[in-house]
Amino acid sequence: MNCLLIEPHEWVPGSDRVRITGRRRRHADEILRASPGDTLRVGVVGGRIGSARIVELDEASLELAVELERDPPPKRPLHIVLALPRPPVFRRLVSTIASLGAERLLVVGTARTEKSFWQSHAIDDDEVRERLLLGLEQASDTILPAVEMHRYFEPLVEEILPPLLRDRRALLAHPGSARPCPHAIEGPITVFVGPEGGLIDYEIDRLESIGFESVDLGSRVLRVEPVIPLLVGRLFD
Amino acid sequence: MNCLLIEPHEWVPGSDRVRITGRRRRHADEILRASPGDTLRVGVVGGRIGSARIVELDEASLELAVELERDPPPKRPLHIVLALPRPPVFRRLVSTIASLGAERLLVVGTARTEKSFWQSHAIDDDEVRERLLLGLEQASDTILPAVEMHRYFEPLVEEILPPLLRDRRALLAHPGSARPCPHAIEGPITVFVGPEGGLIDYEIDRLESIGFESVDLGSRVLRVEPVIPLLVGRLFD
Repeated sequence: MNCLLIEPHEWVPGSDRVRITGRRRRHADEILRASPGDTLRVGVVGGRIGSARIVELDEASLELAVELERDPPPKRPLHIVLALPRPPVFRRLVSTIASLGAERLLVVGTARTEKSFWQSHAIDDDEVRERLLLGLEQASDTILPAVEMHRYFEPLVEEILPPLLRDRRALLAHPGSARPCPHAIEGPITVFVGPEGGLIDYEIDRLESIGFESVDLGSRVLRVEPVIPLLVGRLFD
Repeated sequence: MNCLLIEPHEWVPGSDRVRITGRRRRHADEILRASPGDTLRVGVVGGRIGSARIVELDEASLELAVELERDPPPKRPLHIVLALPRPPVFRRLVSTIASLGAERLLVVGTARTEKSFWQSHAIDDDEVRERLLLGLEQASDTILPAVEMHRYFEPLVEEILPPLLRDRRALLAHPGSARPCPHAIEGPITVFVGPEGGLIDYEIDRLESIGFESVDLGSRVLRVEPVIPLLVGRLFD
């Protein structure tokens, strides 16, 4: 945790103070070994970042005097469309995607997405939000990326994606396509990352028909978890 | 598992057959739902890749008729020097690093590396080898990257690294350095990735004194797990 995130309801009314409980209090206490007088980097979820002095730290809560000084880092103009992976991978990826600064994540079903994954609590709103916050804390960001679940492929390509792709370059990571993935491109980007078993030919055709360019990441087929940061490192400057 | 890896001792003497037991037999049976007559992609650890027909599949073993046709994909000319991370992260990273095609991994201790991590079984030779094989199976590669453990920083920078850096570009991922990390560079590269808490100033000075250039990956401080694929996506074409 490089930045402790404060929820707006944690302000002590009419003051510059906040009172924090739960995981973040324990983290300040046990991991950071913070004590009264120490200063922590903080941010307000959805708002600005700054620093906070520990006023009180007891068994139950942490009270901070907060000074917000600047805006969080800019987002990357990146939308990620991701075939739902195995739940433990999904949990880690949600944090990673938030830390990388993506604006939007669309989690989608494909022919080779395991149906049972949609029963996992990993995709529940509150679990996703908790994972996003962990990623934002890592990157000292405060703005939650938008996350949407789209279980069925047809409505996704027919209705959801076309308006979202206007004025964006759309790339489909697809092993074996002729074009190598470009480096450091300008402007907003949407990337589609399929399931471990790959997309079926029909899905590739449909995605290309709405504007996705298939690009290759080399002869090595990688797991989805490293593919996302690999694409971000490559596509952005 | 995109490619089943065969150990040289698994050849049935004087034949084109191999007999496989354990995890890989179960994987062929339960995950791939393979049956006699089916063809699998295979490789021999340290050798060539090709295909194999299932001759027999019983409770205990899998017998394959193997045809080796081509060399594994070329390695990337990449050495990674990595401060030992938490054991579960290290286990996943070893597989990822193998799948990404790095030639060599030096696992090192730094001032902010938790000493207890060196007691973990995750760094035992046989555990590391098992994790490397998982990564190679993912990428259809057969050549194990060299992995070395260097617990102490001083002998590392004084004796181990200088001869290894000859004729290689050496980059140190260091948040806040003035130079942005380059894209798609030519020739052999060594990257140094520090611990979650960062390197101390003394360590940065020492690494720069033996030829490392500090490069920045943007204003977001990332976890070590996404940093490695992010660097590979950025540095290689």
